[in-house]
Amino acid sequence: MADYQQMWANLGMDLEKHDVLCEVLPEAFGGVYLTQQDRPKGMDFYDFVVSEIHGVRPAEMLQHQKEGGKVFGTFCVYVPDEVVFAAGGIAAGLCGGSQFWVSGGEKVLPANTCPLIKASVGARLDKTCPFFLIPDMYVAENTCDGKKKAWEILAGEVPMHIIDIPQMKRERDVAAFAAEIRDFIGVVEKVTGKKINAESLGEAIKLINNKRRALQRVYNARKASPVPISGKDALLVTQINFYDDPARAAQMANNLADELEQRINNGTGVFPENAPRIMISGTPMAIPNWKLHHIVESLGAAIVVEESCTGTRYFENLVDETASTLDEQIRALAERYMKTNCACFTPNSARIDDIIRLADEYKVDGIIDTNLQFCNLYSTESYLIKQVMTERNLPIIHIETDYSEQDFEQLRTRVEAFLEMLRK
Amino acid sequence: MADYQQMWANLGMDLEKHDVLCEVLPEAFGGVYLTQQDRPKGMDFYDFVVSEIHGVRPAEMLQHQKEGGKVFGTFCVYVPDEVVFAAGGIAAGLCGGSQFWVSGGEKVLPANTCPLIKASVGARLDKTCPFFLIPDMYVAENTCDGKKKAWEILAGEVPMHIIDIPQMKRERDVAAFAAEIRDFIGVVEKVTGKKINAESLGEAIKLINNKRRALQRVYNARKASPVPISGKDALLVTQINFYDDPARAAQMANNLADELEQRINNGTGVFPENAPRIMISGTPMAIPNWKLHHIVESLGAAIVVEESCTGTRYFENLVDETASTLDEQIRALAERYMKTNCACFTPNSARIDDIIRLADEYKVDGIIDTNLQFCNLYSTESYLIKQVMTERNLPIIHIETDYSEQDFEQLRTRVEAFLEMLRK
Repeated sequence: MADYQQMWANLGMDLEKHDVLCEVLPEAFGGVYLTQQDRPKGMDFYDFVVSEIHGVRPAEMLQHQKEGGKVFGTFCVYVPDEVVFAAGGIAAGLCGGSQFWVSGGEKVLPANTCPLIKASVGARLDKTCPFFLIPDMYVAENTCDGKKKAWEILAGEVPMHIIDIPQMKRERDVAAFAAEIRDFIGVVEKVTGKKINAESLGEAIKLINNKRRALQRVYNARKASPVPISGKDALLVTQINFYDDPARAAQMANNLADELEQRINNGTGVFPENAPRIMISGTPMAIPNWKLHHIVESLGAAIVVEESCTGTRYFENLVDETASTLDEQIRALAERYMKTNCACFTPNSARIDDIIRLADEYKVDGIIDTNLQFCNLYSTESYLIKQVMTERNLPIIHIETDYSEQDFEQLRTRVEAFLEMLRK
Repeated sequence: MADYQQMWANLGMDLEKHDVLCEVLPEAFGGVYLTQQDRPKGMDFYDFVVSEIHGVRPAEMLQHQKEGGKVFGTFCVYVPDEVVFAAGGIAAGLCGGSQFWVSGGEKVLPANTCPLIKASVGARLDKTCPFFLIPDMYVAENTCDGKKKAWEILAGEVPMHIIDIPQMKRERDVAAFAAEIRDFIGVVEKVTGKKINAESLGEAIKLINNKRRALQRVYNARKASPVPISGKDALLVTQINFYDDPARAAQMANNLADELEQRINNGTGVFPENAPRIMISGTPMAIPNWKLHHIVESLGAAIVVEESCTGTRYFENLVDETASTLDEQIRALAERYMKTNCACFTPNSARIDDIIRLADEYKVDGIIDTNLQFCNLYSTESYLIKQVMTERNLPIIHIETDYSEQDFEQLRTRVEAFLEMLRK
């Protein structure tokens, strides 16, 4: 592993505290990932990224800044990365997925805040993550109460632009989102000093669409039985796609998809054909949150799809590439992003339709509907989802968890009982 | 007390369960309210309303419906009652303030939901409150995550219209709120069968403004030292104003204000002049939530102002009465409602300005910043508020509580220590 100590020091990181994280992560990753059997060779790239997680990509970002480029940190799948790349910038997802950062967030946020928000704020305030220190600007968004207010605290730390996400999906809400994208273009142009035009935005739309297409190929492969890739591995691919260079991300996901398609042709799988096929629905799992996937798959079930922001919501819909003027492109972006069904919208019955459709496409035996503790949006929707799935005889359990390991055994017991029921 | 059993039965209420509530409430009210010394005579009306709380006003509403009128139940100070009254309807605030209803809400909502939302949903589902059963329509609003999702569950019970409240306060957000008011006018016209015009809306604007002016007079009187009315009594006045007939509400508040102004002339107060003067800031206290006020005032401090939806946020701003066309009136309504500073907006620094201003106007010695458990919006803002107030040497404590009595002693101890500090 290369030595990044100087780079981290230059970023003003708390090196002593950061060392603690650097000691735990490889071991955790080894236990969860490297013990898996028959992993696709295409996972080597992602394993390498994790092995240098705070080194290789941050170094690229710093190099980009050295060459005059700008870096934008984001926290949500509703932020249109296309705009940033159209101006020659880098957009990188920052969401924190480790308990390590939670206590830092709790210094300023109510303990009753979801761990993703607490970890994200803590990672910045404690200066233990290079990704949070590099960006020239954070691009945040009004999706849930917790994030909306957390931005007010982070705004004291770093320049921020807030995208106001509509709460409903009427025509005027799509128009409102288009107006937000227009504003965002202005902000990005100002920060980067580069004008965005139909040509550059068109290219960026293709760039990000290509990443989505590659992820769609990986996910499509998971529809096969036996499933050629574990849920843990697929989750890692998505997690890393959030902040990797999008062209490389597409390339690597396409390489992996080639291999998975070959495996399907050969009938090769990583779980026996009769292993229960599980869908995870609900809140995102930011890197390195692999807890639930690890529990489920260690019990012999295969997670074949995630209906989440670190799953299908991230890449399912493409932006219309035939839009040729800036106005048309902005409209196409607004329409694409407003197709994503987050629980922050009301009503949000289209999300239930998504779950039904995915359960069918991925031949799911049971759904583990999960939400991060204190996420009122997803936990309230779980009531409505359970009603519909029960009517359709689709087995479902609801799990609320956080980033700590305290509930590990309890979750294992609950998941085990659920899988037992599916196997009958 | 009149016999309303038949009326309640006709509403489909759970009479047995409701009897339990009817037994507890008078005793609770007696202990909290009737033990106070030197209460203004003007409080007799409000005492009467509480003594017949599920009788007299519901009977009026039912009579209104019998005569062809419609009733709209609301949950938020952002719902423009003016529109309902302009169409000859009745708007009535429904927010639940009792622990009695919480368990009913928890049957369908996550336990991690604020007690106000759980109680409101429980009051409807358990059929133990006539106010929740009478309305022809609920007019809900997208303010916080908990409410936004709870409406999706309540929508299975009763016709609902949702007003989409903006999350920011830019010019385009005021315009968006005006568009929501326009939609709401259409909905109310349809439900009532009555057209709203500039004349009827103008009259309704005056009607509701008059109620606001009357409440402003009551609150202005609280600026005097010694304070001529307890915080508990003032809170009760506001709570009842949420659902009483607005013309009567104004009349009764004006009568009370006359008496309070007389008291000020006479130098009569309900607390000694040296009693600590307290501001409560934060989340609303729906009837019959008197817990914190009771604790504070039982310890000898006077609550002189509430920066909350059951306080200044309810009546501080008036709608411009010079607007003469429907378009102008809609705009004036949007501007007035968007002046209210709820923590659901971002940024919301104007709320901090409000608190600073109120502390000065009401000559406040200390602030008790309070939030209902699991209200992430207000609890996150409390961090920012505490920072500013501490810089200004304004003593402040933050209290998180719910509707249960479990934390009563603990709160008393904390408030006592805070008051002790103020008295030094």
